Amino acid sequence: MNEKKPIFGLVSVSDRASKGEYEDRGIPALKEYLASVIEGGFETIDMVIPDDAPGIQQTLMALADEKGCSVIFTTGGTGPSKRDVTPEATRAVCEKLLPGFGELMRRVSLAKVPTAILSRQEAGIRGACFILNLPGKPKAIKECLDAVFPAIPDCVDIIGGAFIDIKKDAFAVYRPH
Amino acid sequence: MNEKKPIFGLVSVSDRASKGEYEDRGIPALKEYLASVIEGGFETIDMVIPDDAPGIQQTLMALADEKGCSVIFTTGGTGPSKRDVTPEATRAVCEKLLPGFGELMRRVSLAKVPTAILSRQEAGIRGACFILNLPGKPKAIKECLDAVFPAIPDCVDIIGGAFIDIKKDAFAVYRPH
Amino acid sequence: MNEKKPIFGLVSVSDRASKGEYEDRGIPALKEYLASVIEGGFETIDMVIPDDAPGIQQTLMALADEKGCSVIFTTGGTGPSKRDVTPEATRAVCEKLLPGFGELMRRVSLAKVPTAILSRQEAGIRGACFILNLPGKPKAIKECLDAVFPAIPDCVDIIGGAFIDIKKDAFAVYRPH
Repeated sequence: MNEKKPIFGLVSVSDRASKGEYEDRGIPALKEYLASVIEGGFETIDMVIPDDAPGIQQTLMALADEKGCSVIFTTGGTGPSKRDVTPEATRAVCEKLLPGFGELMRRVSLAKVPTAILSRQEAGIRGACFILNLPGKPKAIKECLDAVFPAIPDCVDIIGGAFIDIKKDAFAVYRPH
Repeated sequence: MNEKKPIFGLVSVSDRASKGEYEDRGIPALKEYLASVIEGGFETIDMVIPDDAPGIQQTLMALADEKGCSVIFTTGGTGPSKRDVTPEATRAVCEKLLPGFGELMRRVSLAKVPTAILSRQEAGIRGACFILNLPGKPKAIKECLDAVFPAIPDCVDIIGGAFIDIKKDAFAVYRPH
Repeated sequence: MNEKKPIFGLVSVSDRASKGEYEDRGIPALKEYLASVIEGGFETIDMVIPDDAPGIQQTLMALADEKGCSVIFTTGGTGPSKRDVTPEATRAVCEKLLPGFGELMRRVSLAKVPTAILSRQEAGIRGACFILNLPGKPKAIKECLDAVFPAIPDCVDIIGGAFIDIKKDAFAVYRPH
């Protein structure tokens, strides 16, 4: 039994939140979600950074390579505007991309809003760290995580990250590996 | 209120239609569709060009950068044959790609024909212009646009294009920005 | 009437099966599937090779360029682990990618297991050969082929491969070209 608690990097990407022009709501939403599904404790490292591709890349690399994160969730910066560069920065640091995550998140969000197809959310792997782009809005974060989280513990097992235990009443984890 | 009417670039990509070997049916279908959903007038710039990647790229760049198009719809050239290069040309000129459009169009077309998965339709952004690859057949054009058009006005707002007003009886536009 | 029987390249990608550490189950599953749907005979060329990107690429190129395969099915090596490189090798040798295949296979597999979104299966074209990545497990192979095979004969027609005739009681082939 692996005693090490998983570390989640939580990265809110927003020019305005990083300048303090408004309060970030992404990281609190992510923490609330994790608390509701993770069994046995976890740690987080929280960052609020601007929509700047090189800065996002450096943050992702540091969290994956130096800080021991098994999972990084980004929130924000996945839309079509010029400043939305989170997917580009994610692709640049990942060794493998996992297109199924973006496909499924867009599909579940599309059942709510037709503009869900504007989202360019990526997922990928860097070393023993799984990186996932999430939307900026707390409600959309929860909708996306509800859809894709059941696949994350197995993915992290496969790439050699920490064991992520899930509360019995949260959802059934499929963990064949 | 932005008084400028939106300009749509309509690009039919077809070796045979560009040589006059048969009549292009893509642009008429696109115009009919636009007339049925756009409120308050619009302009189009129409081009019928061969399946040649450099030529397609130059056409897309001219329409986006010089002609002031807020939207470009291409029709044709998205299949698996050697001469089908519209998606490659589109990718080459876009600063951002929007994979959700292709995913949704393939999904709705798949409900009609199993060969819908052969379509390689792309969508992306160049400057303040949204570019979308559509199929060649009028019926398939309408099916695809019915699925994705509700997301286009908001996308064009976000990237700084002209205001695209939609007829009240056409469909509900979700426009959070 | 084209009398030439189609040749299918069947490539099982697995470090352990290629060393004989366990028996490959992918190629037998593929042959059983082909026998159940193909009318009028077919040939296969079977290869069991390790999870090594340059080796996979060379195998795919030889089967497409020298051995006259109209279709190559790979099985295995599409997951998130470091050794899973079949999609990368496939992309490297294809002139065109067909994203609709991966999207649809992930979607149908997702109805069975939540970890289906971890699959990175690709499809693409090299010359007159259609290449498709399939999962490693026989049950998942059949589920994926049931979903996408109806589009393959038309695709191979379009790219100039051999005529693939389908048994009348297998499924309806849509073949507009």
